[in-house]
Amino acid sequence: MLSSAEMSEARQRIAAAYDPELLRGAGHRLIEQLAAHLGDVQASRTAVLPWREPAANVAEAASWLERSLPAGADGTQVLRHFSQLVTLMLQRGQNLHDPRYVGHQVPAPVPLAGLFDALGATTNQCMAVYDMGPWATAAEWCLVERLGQLIGWPRSTFAGMATHGGSLANLTALLAARNVALGDSWEQGLSGHGRAPVLVAHADAHYSVGRSAGILGLGTAQVERVGLDARRRMDPAQLEDTLRQLRGQQRPIVAVVACACSTSIGAFDPLADIADVCQRYGVWLHVDAAHGGSACVSARYRPLVAGLERADSVVWDAHKMLFMPALCAFVFFRDKALRFEAFRQEAPYLFDPAAPGMAEFDSGLRTVECTKRAATFGLWGVWALYGQQLFADLVDLTFSLGHQFYERLQAAPDFEPLHEPQCNIVVFRYVPRALAGAPPTRLGQFQLELRRRIIESGEFYLVSTKINGIGAMRTTIINPLTTPEHLDQLLDSIRRHGAALLGA
Amino acid sequence: MLSSAEMSEARQRIAAAYDPELLRGAGHRLIEQLAAHLGDVQASRTAVLPWREPAANVAEAASWLERSLPAGADGTQVLRHFSQLVTLMLQRGQNLHDPRYVGHQVPAPVPLAGLFDALGATTNQCMAVYDMGPWATAAEWCLVERLGQLIGWPRSTFAGMATHGGSLANLTALLAARNVALGDSWEQGLSGHGRAPVLVAHADAHYSVGRSAGILGLGTAQVERVGLDARRRMDPAQLEDTLRQLRGQQRPIVAVVACACSTSIGAFDPLADIADVCQRYGVWLHVDAAHGGSACVSARYRPLVAGLERADSVVWDAHKMLFMPALCAFVFFRDKALRFEAFRQEAPYLFDPAAPGMAEFDSGLRTVECTKRAATFGLWGVWALYGQQLFADLVDLTFSLGHQFYERLQAAPDFEPLHEPQCNIVVFRYVPRALAGAPPTRLGQFQLELRRRIIESGEFYLVSTKINGIGAMRTTIINPLTTPEHLDQLLDSIRRHGAALLGA
Repeated sequence: MLSSAEMSEARQRIAAAYDPELLRGAGHRLIEQLAAHLGDVQASRTAVLPWREPAANVAEAASWLERSLPAGADGTQVLRHFSQLVTLMLQRGQNLHDPRYVGHQVPAPVPLAGLFDALGATTNQCMAVYDMGPWATAAEWCLVERLGQLIGWPRSTFAGMATHGGSLANLTALLAARNVALGDSWEQGLSGHGRAPVLVAHADAHYSVGRSAGILGLGTAQVERVGLDARRRMDPAQLEDTLRQLRGQQRPIVAVVACACSTSIGAFDPLADIADVCQRYGVWLHVDAAHGGSACVSARYRPLVAGLERADSVVWDAHKMLFMPALCAFVFFRDKALRFEAFRQEAPYLFDPAAPGMAEFDSGLRTVECTKRAATFGLWGVWALYGQQLFADLVDLTFSLGHQFYERLQAAPDFEPLHEPQCNIVVFRYVPRALAGAPPTRLGQFQLELRRRIIESGEFYLVSTKINGIGAMRTTIINPLTTPEHLDQLLDSIRRHGAALLGA
Repeated sequence: MLSSAEMSEARQRIAAAYDPELLRGAGHRLIEQLAAHLGDVQASRTAVLPWREPAANVAEAASWLERSLPAGADGTQVLRHFSQLVTLMLQRGQNLHDPRYVGHQVPAPVPLAGLFDALGATTNQCMAVYDMGPWATAAEWCLVERLGQLIGWPRSTFAGMATHGGSLANLTALLAARNVALGDSWEQGLSGHGRAPVLVAHADAHYSVGRSAGILGLGTAQVERVGLDARRRMDPAQLEDTLRQLRGQQRPIVAVVACACSTSIGAFDPLADIADVCQRYGVWLHVDAAHGGSACVSARYRPLVAGLERADSVVWDAHKMLFMPALCAFVFFRDKALRFEAFRQEAPYLFDPAAPGMAEFDSGLRTVECTKRAATFGLWGVWALYGQQLFADLVDLTFSLGHQFYERLQAAPDFEPLHEPQCNIVVFRYVPRALAGAPPTRLGQFQLELRRRIIESGEFYLVSTKINGIGAMRTTIINPLTTPEHLDQLLDSIRRHGAALLGA
C-alpha cells in the first residue's frame, strides 16, 4: 500500500491527466487537425498511403514511448506534445478519404460517425450488462430491429446483435448452427462424434468461414466447397449434389454458407434457389452478407439479395457498405428463439437474479465478447441525422461507379475485366501489348508486382487477388468521393507504372 | 445503375455529409459538450447511472431514427441536430468518471485516450494487412514489445497482439494451446479423438474460459476445475492431483488456466508454484491476467504476478487496469515461434506474395478478427505523453484504495468483508443487526436486492456476485478519483437503503 504522502502525489499527477480543461484544450486541437487533414486528403494533397517499411514505423513509434514528458509537466506542454503526436499519427496513416483509395472493403467512413464513436470511447460506454451502456444497448437494439426488417423479417420475430467484426459474426452464427445441428456439442465437445461433421461453403467464401471450422473443432479439412457457376456464384444444382452425397455418407451437416456477396469478385449467390435446397435437406443456411447486406437499404439494389430473408443466420457489416468506422458488424438469427444458442453459460457476478427480465438486454449472454464497445453509436447517430437516404445514396453511387469502371476497362484494349461486376468490387488485369500471350503465371505475377509499385508510389491504393490461382488486380470503390475521372487516372497510373516495371 | 442526374444528386448529398467544415463544426461542439459533461460527472452533479428501464431507452432511441433531417438540410440544422443527439447520448449513459462508480472492471478511462481513439475511428485506421493501418501496426508492435518485457521476457523472444477484448484473447490463447496439444485438430477437427481432451482451470476462472471450451469443440463439461486454497487461489497441490489423475486416465490436457487475478474476488494465483507443476507434466500454462497483468507496471505490486513470465500464454487487458477505453486487450505467447499456431490459413487477396516478409506485420494472420480497429492508439498516445509513471500511479492508487476500503469494512460492525483484498476488487456483505443470524440464502438475497436499489438510486454503482452460491456485494475501485471519503459515503448509502429495504 502507498503511504498517505505517496497517495497524495499520485492523486495530483492523475488529477492533472483527468482534468476536463485538458480534454477541452486537446479536443479542440484534435478537431482542428482532423478537419484540416480531411480537407487535404479529400483533395489528394498527400499520398494515399504514405509508404514506409514496417520496421521503420515500429522503431519510430517505439522511440516516442521513450520521450514522454517529465512528471509535473504543465498543461501547455501536454497540449503541445499532444498536437505533435496527432500530427505524426495523421502523417503516418492510410488515407481512406482520398478518392484515389479503391482498395480493401474498408470505407472512407462518414466523418461524423467518428465523432459519435468518440463520445462512446471517451465516456467508455460498454456493454455486457445493460447498466454499463444503457444507451449503447438502446442504440444497438433499435438498429437490430431496423436492419432485420430491411432484411425482410417481421418485427420482433428475429434476433441480432453487434459484434467486433464480420469474422467474429461468422464465427458466432456458425457456432449457433453447430450447437443446433450437433445437439450436445457445446457441453460435451466433438470428440465423441464418430463421423466428422461437415461445413458446406461457397468455394470463394471469406477465409473466416474456413477458420471458423478450425476454431469450432470441426476442422478446416471438413469444409466441403460447393462449385460455382460461370459468374462465380454458388451453383444450387451442385449444392444439391453435395448435400445428397453427404447424407448418403451419413455425415452431420452443420450449415451451408452462401455469400452476398463473395469477397473475391463480389458475386451474389442466388439465395432463393439455395434456400430451396437447404429447406429440402433441413440444413441451416448461413449467408455472409458482410458486404452486400447493405443492398437492403437501396430500392435499386435490393434485388441482389432476394431470398436473404430465408437464411437462418445473416452477417452484415456496417463498417463496410454502411460507411461506418471499424468495427460495427451485425449477426442475425431469423428465429428469435435461437438467440441464446451460441452460448449457454452464466456468470454470477454479471447477470443479476434480482432483476430476471434484464438478462434479455445483457449482451454478454449472446456475444463472444464480454465487455463490448458501443459499436453502434456511429450508425445510430448518422441514421438519426440523415435517415436511410444517405445510406442508400452511398450504396447506389458506389455500386454504379463499379459498373462505370467496368465499362472503362472493357473499352480499353490493354485492360481485361475478369467479370461483369454486380456491385463495387471490380477485378481485372492489365495486359500491355508486351505481355499479350505471356504465360498466365507470368501475367499474374506482373499484376502483383505492378500493384505493389502503385501503392508504394502513393498515387492510388488498390489490392490484389488470385482468380483460379493467377494474380489479378482488385478494386473496391468504397470512397463515395471517387469520380469517373479518378478511375480514368487510375488506368493511366497503371499504364505508366506498368511501362516502368516492364522497362526495369 | 443510377442515371447521371441521379448520381449527381446523390453525390451532392454525400459531399455535404463529408464536408470537412461540418466535421470541424460538429467536432468543436462535441468537445465542448464532452468537457462540460466530464466536469459535471467528476463533481458528481448527476446520477452515476441514470437508471431507466431498457424498453424505455430502446423506444426512445428508435424514435430518433424516425426524426432524421429532411434531405437538403443545411449545415446549421445538421449541427443543431448533432448537438441534440450528443446531449441525449451523454444524459442516458453510464457515468464511469463519477468517483462513486465502483462497479465492474471497466475503468474511468484517461480522457485523452478517447481522443487518440477518435483519431483512429474518424480516419478509420484498421488492421489485417499492414498497409491499412501502418501506424496502428507500429503502435501495437512497440506496445507488445514493451508490455512483454514488463512481463519479464527478453526482447524479441515472444509474440503478442491486440484483440477486441479479454474473452477473445483467452479464446485465441486456448485455441493455440489446443492446436499444439492435439496435433491436427485445426485441420481434422476433434471428432476423431477418442478420449475427450480436457481444459484444466481455476475454479473461479472467468466465464470466457468455460465458453472457450464450448466454442473450441472441447465441451464445457470437459473443463476440470482445480480446487482453491483459503484465499480462493488455485492450490498447486490440488492441481498436481488433477493432472496426475488425468494422465492416469490418458486424457489429453489442452492447458492449465490460472488467474492473475480471479474475477470474483481478485485473488492472485501462486504462479511460480503452478508453473513448476505444469512444467513437470509438460502442460501449457495459460494465465488470464486481464486485470492483474497491469501489476507489471508498478514496482510496488509487481510481486503479485511473480512467475507470470513462465506462462506459455498471457492475457492482459489495457481496458482494465491501464485505464484505456474498451476494447484494448493483449494476448501474448512466450515462445515467438508459436505466433501463427492459432490460425493457419491464407487469404490470397490479403497476403501479398509480391512482398513476402510483410506477412509478419499483417495482423489478420494472427487474430480472430480480419479487419481490426486501431485498438492501441489510446495506450500508445497516453504512454507517449506521460510514460509508465501514470500507469503505475493508477495501479498503485486504486490498489491502495482497495485496501483502505477493506480496513473500513473490517472496522464497521455491520459490514463483513469476505476476503483481504490483494488488489482493488473488494467483496463484502452488509449485515445489519436485523439480519444477524439470518439464513445465508436470505442474507445473500438481501445483498442483491439492496445493490439493485442503490444503483437505481443513482447514488453509487457497485455490482454483485455469489461466493459459494450466496449473494454478496462486489466493488472494484477503478476510478482513480474515488477517495476514502467516497468509500465512507458508500457505507452510509448502503446503510440508508438497507434500512429502507428492511422497512419495506
